[in-house]
Amino acid sequence: LIKKLSFNTTEKYQLLDVTKEVEKLIEESHVSDGLCLIFTPHSTAAIILTENENRLRKDWLSFLKQLIKDQKFAHNQIDINAKAHLLSGLLGTDKTLIIENGKIIRGRWQQIFLVELDGPRTRQIVVKIKS
Amino acid sequence: LIKKLSFNTTEKYQLLDVTKEVEKLIEESHVSDGLCLIFTPHSTAAIILTENENRLRKDWLSFLKQLIKDQKFAHNQIDINAKAHLLSGLLGTDKTLIIENGKIIRGRWQQIFLVELDGPRTRQIVVKIKS
Amino acid sequence: LIKKLSFNTTEKYQLLDVTKEVEKLIEESHVSDGLCLIFTPHSTAAIILTENENRLRKDWLSFLKQLIKDQKFAHNQIDINAKAHLLSGLLGTDKTLIIENGKIIRGRWQQIFLVELDGPRTRQIVVKIKS
Repeated sequence: LIKKLSFNTTEKYQLLDVTKEVEKLIEESHVSDGLCLIFTPHSTAAIILTENENRLRKDWLSFLKQLIKDQKFAHNQIDINAKAHLLSGLLGTDKTLIIENGKIIRGRWQQIFLVELDGPRTRQIVVKIKS
Repeated sequence: LIKKLSFNTTEKYQLLDVTKEVEKLIEESHVSDGLCLIFTPHSTAAIILTENENRLRKDWLSFLKQLIKDQKFAHNQIDINAKAHLLSGLLGTDKTLIIENGKIIRGRWQQIFLVELDGPRTRQIVVKIKS
Repeated sequence: LIKKLSFNTTEKYQLLDVTKEVEKLIEESHVSDGLCLIFTPHSTAAIILTENENRLRKDWLSFLKQLIKDQKFAHNQIDINAKAHLLSGLLGTDKTLIIENGKIIRGRWQQIFLVELDGPRTRQIVVKIKS
């Protein structure tokens, strides 16, 4: 079972909590035990698990910017989004989660986030649910 | 097949080799060919593959601290573990491995580690074995 | 279905686009819908998705070097490749992708790369295709 979700981001850098939308798909699938693969088909976005707390979301954005702050980018001669490509590759665009008793196994403070690194844009998330 | 393991960490930052425990589960499952998903349901821990060598484990901890050394954290106003959240999200909490002939495919120097980033605590690892 | 590919890298640090070779395996498998797990069994290499553009590949290498530039490594007393171990663990050695209608779902600028961090060497990639 493959489902596709679409989200509009509003900022250059943004953390968007997509947990509810993904968990709704699991519920609708009636899959009790299996795997759930969450993938974003973009080279300037990423998927992470982290806590949904306002200040932490800000910390994430400043952390990501700081990781690449000192660098000069050759790719920027053709496209100014080299930073976004590097951070997307570093964080990764796929997460595989376990479904047990119809629910995703995740910690209390682990929400699923789409990370926008070159917005605002319309972004896709592909969810594969496998029993 | 879903199995849950529990580990007590003893340090604030720690790399704990869980390879033996995970491979014992594979052996007991009698699954010959399939997938093995290793997941830790915590937002301040992570799963990595790396070599189990004393000095390298120390290098990992100093590397992780250095990645976030210059940063100020807004989230710390409510909880002083912002660093742990960021590193958990950066390293990731899931690894998917391949089972062939009843064994996990991994390199000679690739052991499976639970990374404690805000210990000491009791940590869970969930292992999903799928033929 | 498990397939193994072999690649010879030619540089100390190198990004090698393996998309064609992986997609050929998917095609030959005749699997229409499923999962594709790409794994490299080495502790000094990694798998990432990123755009195949000359200058961006250079940016990747300078970015990775910059992430660990200030660090002293205890592990180097026995083996000078500590940096490669840390970057391999940070980027990760597994990627799970979705197969739909006989093709891997990926963005237009998402190619599959083997990242060499301690070359030149002969490197393996293990591909598990699961319907």
